[in-house]
Amino acid sequence: MDSDYGVPRELSELQKKRTEYQPELPPCLQGTTVRVEFGDSTTCADPSSANVISRAFPHTFGQPLAHFLRATAKIPDAQIITEHPPIRVGIVFCGRQSSGGHNVVWGLYNAMKIHNPDNILLGFLGGTEGLFAQKTLEITDEVLATYKNQGGFDLLGRTVDQIRTTEQVNATMKACRVLKLDGLVIVGGVTSNSDAAQLAETFAEDKCTTKVVGVPVTLYGDLKNQFVETNVGFDTVCKVNSQLISNVCIDALSAEKYYYFIRLMGRHASHVAAECALQSHPNMLILGEEVALSKLTLFDITKQICDAVQARAAKDKYHGVILIPEGLIASIPELYALLQEIHDLQDQGISTDDISSHLSPWATALFQFLPPFIRKQLLLNPESDDAAQLSQIETEKLLAQLVEKEMSNRMKEGTYKGKKFNAICHFFGYQARGSLPSKFDCDYAYVLGHICYHILAAGLNGYLATVTNLKNPVNKWRCGAAPLAAMMTVKRHSRAPGAIPIGKPAIHPVSLDLKGKVYELLRERATSFLMDDLYRNPGPLQFEGPGSEAKTYTLSVEDQDYMGRMKMLQEYLDKVKSIVKPGVSQDVLKAALISMASVTEVLSVMTMPSFNGHQPL
Amino acid sequence: MDSDYGVPRELSELQKKRTEYQPELPPCLQGTTVRVEFGDSTTCADPSSANVISRAFPHTFGQPLAHFLRATAKIPDAQIITEHPPIRVGIVFCGRQSSGGHNVVWGLYNAMKIHNPDNILLGFLGGTEGLFAQKTLEITDEVLATYKNQGGFDLLGRTVDQIRTTEQVNATMKACRVLKLDGLVIVGGVTSNSDAAQLAETFAEDKCTTKVVGVPVTLYGDLKNQFVETNVGFDTVCKVNSQLISNVCIDALSAEKYYYFIRLMGRHASHVAAECALQSHPNMLILGEEVALSKLTLFDITKQICDAVQARAAKDKYHGVILIPEGLIASIPELYALLQEIHDLQDQGISTDDISSHLSPWATALFQFLPPFIRKQLLLNPESDDAAQLSQIETEKLLAQLVEKEMSNRMKEGTYKGKKFNAICHFFGYQARGSLPSKFDCDYAYVLGHICYHILAAGLNGYLATVTNLKNPVNKWRCGAAPLAAMMTVKRHSRAPGAIPIGKPAIHPVSLDLKGKVYELLRERATSFLMDDLYRNPGPLQFEGPGSEAKTYTLSVEDQDYMGRMKMLQEYLDKVKSIVKPGVSQDVLKAALISMASVTEVLSVMTMPSFNGHQPL
Repeated sequence: MDSDYGVPRELSELQKKRTEYQPELPPCLQGTTVRVEFGDSTTCADPSSANVISRAFPHTFGQPLAHFLRATAKIPDAQIITEHPPIRVGIVFCGRQSSGGHNVVWGLYNAMKIHNPDNILLGFLGGTEGLFAQKTLEITDEVLATYKNQGGFDLLGRTVDQIRTTEQVNATMKACRVLKLDGLVIVGGVTSNSDAAQLAETFAEDKCTTKVVGVPVTLYGDLKNQFVETNVGFDTVCKVNSQLISNVCIDALSAEKYYYFIRLMGRHASHVAAECALQSHPNMLILGEEVALSKLTLFDITKQICDAVQARAAKDKYHGVILIPEGLIASIPELYALLQEIHDLQDQGISTDDISSHLSPWATALFQFLPPFIRKQLLLNPESDDAAQLSQIETEKLLAQLVEKEMSNRMKEGTYKGKKFNAICHFFGYQARGSLPSKFDCDYAYVLGHICYHILAAGLNGYLATVTNLKNPVNKWRCGAAPLAAMMTVKRHSRAPGAIPIGKPAIHPVSLDLKGKVYELLRERATSFLMDDLYRNPGPLQFEGPGSEAKTYTLSVEDQDYMGRMKMLQEYLDKVKSIVKPGVSQDVLKAALISMASVTEVLSVMTMPSFNGHQPL
Repeated sequence: MDSDYGVPRELSELQKKRTEYQPELPPCLQGTTVRVEFGDSTTCADPSSANVISRAFPHTFGQPLAHFLRATAKIPDAQIITEHPPIRVGIVFCGRQSSGGHNVVWGLYNAMKIHNPDNILLGFLGGTEGLFAQKTLEITDEVLATYKNQGGFDLLGRTVDQIRTTEQVNATMKACRVLKLDGLVIVGGVTSNSDAAQLAETFAEDKCTTKVVGVPVTLYGDLKNQFVETNVGFDTVCKVNSQLISNVCIDALSAEKYYYFIRLMGRHASHVAAECALQSHPNMLILGEEVALSKLTLFDITKQICDAVQARAAKDKYHGVILIPEGLIASIPELYALLQEIHDLQDQGISTDDISSHLSPWATALFQFLPPFIRKQLLLNPESDDAAQLSQIETEKLLAQLVEKEMSNRMKEGTYKGKKFNAICHFFGYQARGSLPSKFDCDYAYVLGHICYHILAAGLNGYLATVTNLKNPVNKWRCGAAPLAAMMTVKRHSRAPGAIPIGKPAIHPVSLDLKGKVYELLRERATSFLMDDLYRNPGPLQFEGPGSEAKTYTLSVEDQDYMGRMKMLQEYLDKVKSIVKPGVSQDVLKAALISMASVTEVLSVMTMPSFNGHQPL
């Protein structure tokens, strides 16, 4: 098996052309000097969790932000690293394959060789299994030749995707020591980067000199926070899916006889589905976040779709396209409760055949109501995380069946007088996540790879590579690093003010923000999307000409430049200091004190653990 | 509903750019003169059917081939049409939506307006239903503006897709007379063009002056014969599907734990699946034509796949991609027989619930053996043709289940010692057929649209617009028209020599040629595809740069220039005539006679109805 990794392979004309594409570097990463400026020490978004997290991560919580600066930047405090002794770094694909992953390897390799040709980059073969077993492939120009700007994770492969048990952590530490690694780069999503944070803390505790760096690579787009604007792979998967969705829309409009129910891979959050809806304008989008907030039942959702079908029928329209995020099933309260009961029983070791007889009476009733195929899918065992199981549950078929039944009831009762309702179901995911990466993902991943080197050269441990200001051209991108521990949250059982955080701190997937601009855009256009068939076809992913430079709506409409604003705040504070120097008039000093007192008062209230309006970003 | 057709709509950046693309015309169609050369009168490929067809199509069988020539061509017999009185033409989308259909309308409109600005083109709204109901939309520059080079059939829509019953034929004739149409252009595949042929014959019989013209537009690529090299939409659908298949291949190789079973829309024949396999190199392709020839049972196919899985497991490979054409189910002898029994019972009006109790004992046993979901799908009612039903039968899931069962049996028996077999199933079709058309399909469809005008200007009835030499650049394309009746065949019950043709003549879908070069290529590489994971990613459809000019293997490897050869034969015959003019020596005349006698002898034997080696096309 191993002998297949990193082998050169036959490429199509387009693949060959793509291998020749050289991503641009932002000015701050050009040259052979690393200049790093450290900001203030970090906290986390939810003040009430800070204590819990700092206790769990004594070595790595509270580290400062790092900004990488261009060689000519006039920042007095910037640390300039000109010495680059040879280092050895290992890199491992840890999450699900996302387009662009190969470019992280290439970017890191390139940065390492620029700074010292004796640097060695080792790729772990077969993901975390290869890491535990110390199976490596030295990355070289030859190895990379046919993988530059290409999709998949097949250069190195991936496997169990977790480094969590004591055994796994110990095997990892052993590998790092045996291979004499100065750095370990972990490529993955929320789960993998939570593991990376834990690993960094354990290494620091155990005086293992290997520094751990995370890279945000996940097609789900749910590793979002103050420091991370988007993830590698999200742009590509949304573009490929949007192409397919809009092809289906055009198909629906041509034949005018089918409703297409399309489920989109994307884990719990609805980022992929929301972005695809903005790109392709399907008739309906059922957001898991909305369902969870309004506590909509399966029956409510069915009714909502049926009413839409009926409203369209009144305009003589018998076709339509409905998007469903794969996380929807876990957002429907009664189904979530049922899934929880099933998982608890599975954890107790009860066999699949016996589970249904152990359910509570209420859960039994719901279970029996569901069609057999869904029952079978609900009983599947969750894998490393439950994303794999979610992708096996055909929510789109469940909804299509329920809608079909309800429409034929309405027909019998005479409340619906239109034509028979016909549905065709799709699940889009696997066919998108192996795609050739978009130009954006090629660039973003390559730059992140470079940043990993800069993080290691600065001697940082437990950091995630970050690029901000991404909606602007590459030459405006800001490069930095943020402590993984600053991205952590602790789950609570209740949303009440003062509720006590429970559970282990972790980087959690972030849901679609129902107060954000993406959602606002979707709400604004929902009625016209539903009734007017404003289907839009972004077309197949292009690498040249129109559309090739397009960015996601998610990135473009949100005003996300948190790191930029942090710097701006620093500038304001510095300005106050420089204006109110000793010697300044009494009046000016008084004015400054009054103003600053009111500012600090407001901010203190807003950051009190019991503050009611508190919303972690 | 009607008010939505032809409305301008919001286009993406790429869609807009595509509306600006102007397809090239081959030299023979440039200018404002139509020059047509008629060849000899046509027969059909199967000599034994000629009588049956000529009796059924007395007015339209045996018409000559037509070649459209460039204005400067020095062909003495060419008829030059310089007068272009205003004409009225109707166009109807009659088959399933195929990328490029809109360009047939545009090409025809463009040709009509070039030759006489008073020409009127009417599009029938909502396909054949609109034709019967005389609902039209006058095609104008404004109407076309946002549909040029765009996918789908949504400019005009499509519906029942047949013009077959007396009522339908009469409604069509009435529409043509009321709307005073000089021409009716039917856009579709084998079924629609069979209907077009029948319509042309009926119109001629009933002295209806409307001329009927067919255009080969079908993503299935199964309207192939001496005159037709490929169909509009085939190129696009194969490219889009190949992109998705290769994304799945890369996905499989990245995670190394799943077998993907991918079923491809494509009706009975395996053209789409074969072409996609050549573009993307999946591990296995199960061809319906092979299965039918070797009379493989469901059990045989399952065993074949299991053996492959086992051979790969021996090399520590637990992933793979298997392509299945949707027509496969009808190629498996026992399933075909079962489907026939079910259809017969449905024709007898037996209700779905009762069918299983009316099956023969043998069919009952097979039916009960099949998983419930397949049973349900087999009982679905066929629509206008049975292609719609085929797309609803999840053969990929049936095979995946059977393979899973057999692999776990082998595991229990200890004959298989590898890891557990895991399958994920896909059906690709709807998400491809609405795609933006490839450059090839844009050009091909546009040129065919132009040819439709030339056919009508030449006063021809019952012809199909044809372009040959398609594997070469547009400026080498040969444009012509061939009588639809010459493409007909009559089915026989037996393959024995001298078997009597039965049934109505029709244009039948052509299966993948197991003696052709496409199949030869696939056979040659089958073992390395199976074992070596030579996955190739043609990438998303490009409109500029590398890959944008690529043509299908099906078109490129086959040596198809039948029309060119016909012309070459004519040149040889003319040469013999010009060499052996009266006055030539006795020796030369003798030599010519002896040679020609032997040539005609061989050809006579080959075209005898009972000739054993006979192979249509």
